[in-house]
Amino acid sequence: MEDKRMAAEASIKYIKDGMTVGLGSGSTVNFMLEQLAERVKEGLKIKGIPSSLKTERYAKQLGIPLIDFSKTTKIDIAIDGADEVDPNLHLLKGGGGSLVREKIVDRAADKLIIIADSSKIVSKLGEFPLPVEVLPFGFEVTTEQIAAGGCTPVLRKKDGQPFVSDNGNYILDCKFNSIEDPLALHEKLKCITGVVETGLFPQMAHKVIVARDGRIDILHR
Amino acid sequence: MEDKRMAAEASIKYIKDGMTVGLGSGSTVNFMLEQLAERVKEGLKIKGIPSSLKTERYAKQLGIPLIDFSKTTKIDIAIDGADEVDPNLHLLKGGGGSLVREKIVDRAADKLIIIADSSKIVSKLGEFPLPVEVLPFGFEVTTEQIAAGGCTPVLRKKDGQPFVSDNGNYILDCKFNSIEDPLALHEKLKCITGVVETGLFPQMAHKVIVARDGRIDILHR
Repeated sequence: MEDKRMAAEASIKYIKDGMTVGLGSGSTVNFMLEQLAERVKEGLKIKGIPSSLKTERYAKQLGIPLIDFSKTTKIDIAIDGADEVDPNLHLLKGGGGSLVREKIVDRAADKLIIIADSSKIVSKLGEFPLPVEVLPFGFEVTTEQIAAGGCTPVLRKKDGQPFVSDNGNYILDCKFNSIEDPLALHEKLKCITGVVETGLFPQMAHKVIVARDGRIDILHR
Repeated sequence: MEDKRMAAEASIKYIKDGMTVGLGSGSTVNFMLEQLAERVKEGLKIKGIPSSLKTERYAKQLGIPLIDFSKTTKIDIAIDGADEVDPNLHLLKGGGGSLVREKIVDRAADKLIIIADSSKIVSKLGEFPLPVEVLPFGFEVTTEQIAAGGCTPVLRKKDGQPFVSDNGNYILDCKFNSIEDPLALHEKLKCITGVVETGLFPQMAHKVIVARDGRIDILHR
C-alpha cells in the first residue's frame, strides 16, 4: 500500500500548470488523485479527463476540475496503473474493467506515465488473465473464436450476472499463462468480430514509475 | 424493386429443412423474410437468428421461429444484403446501421449468401461511404484517428442527434471514394482504439445472387 502511494506521489511532479491530464483507474491511481487534489487546492490549474465512471466520481468528490472529449481532443499527459508491466514497457490492463476508456484516454495523451508497485513488474505478460471487452450480442460465438487462439476465456461475473463495462459490454478474462508477442496477439484478438478492445497496451507507456520497498525506480522506453 | 424481390426469391431454395438460418437486414432481406414465412407456413422447419432489432421485429410479425446465440452457436446458412459488392465478392455493408450484428451472424454461418439488385455491383468498393461503428466515449479522438487514414468521417445523425446502433454505439460514415485493398483497410481501421467494427466484409460471401432486369446471375468466390 505504501509503495502504491509512493509511486503515485512521484508522478505528480510531471503534471504542470495548464495541462489537460488523463486520469487512469484503479487503486494506485486513487492515491494519485488524492495528491493531485491537494495540489489543485494549493493553486495548480489543470483539467482532468477521467477514464472510468469510478474515477470520474472520485475526482469530482475530491474537487478536481474535469472536462470531456467534446471540449478538447488533446491530452498533455495521462497517468494510469497497470496489472502487469514487462521489460519493454508493454502493459496488461483491465482487471478493474475500464480497459477501453483507459486505452482511449492513454492513446490520446502526448505522454503516458504508469504508476505501480513492484508486484506488477513481470518478465513476460500473461500470468494475469487478459481482459477482452466484447459485445454482448453473440458473445458466445466471439468466445469460441477467442478460445481457438489458445486460451481459456471466462466470462467475468458480478453478483451472479455478467459484469457490464462502462460501455455496456461484457469482459472475458483470458488466461494465456505466457504471451510471447503482445502486439501480434492484440491485433489478432482485436480483429475478431465482436471484440471491442483488449487489455494489451503494447508500445504505449513512455515511463513506468515503480516503487519497491520504499524506493522509486523509473523505467523508460 | 422487382429485382430485389427476384434475388430474394432465388435465395430461398438454399434453405433446407432443419437449418438454423442467419437473417440479415435491409429492404432486399425483407422480401426474403416474406417468402421464407410462406415456406414456414407450408411446413418448412427452420430456426432464424436475426441480425438486427428491425429484422427481429419483422420476422416475429411474419411468424418465423427464432432462436438466439445462447441456444446455439452454429448457423448453417446466412442470407443478407449489401450496399456494394466487388468482383472478388468483398462487401461493403452497414448503410442500415446494423453492420456489427450482421457481421457476427454472417461470420458464424457455414455459408453466406448475399442477395442484391444490380445497382450494388461495383468494380471497386468505396463510392458508398464506409460505415464504421465506434464507441460514444471519446468518439472525437477516434474520428481524428480515422480521418488520418485518408477519408472524411461524418457522424451519422437521426433527428438531429447522433444515430445509435443496436449496440448503443455511434456510426461514422467514411467517404473513401475508392478502396484499393479492402482487407488491409478493414484491419487498419479495426485496430484503432474506439473502433468496434467496420462495414467491410472481405472474404466472407460464398455466393452473391444478383438480379438485373428480371434475370438472375449467381457469382461464386
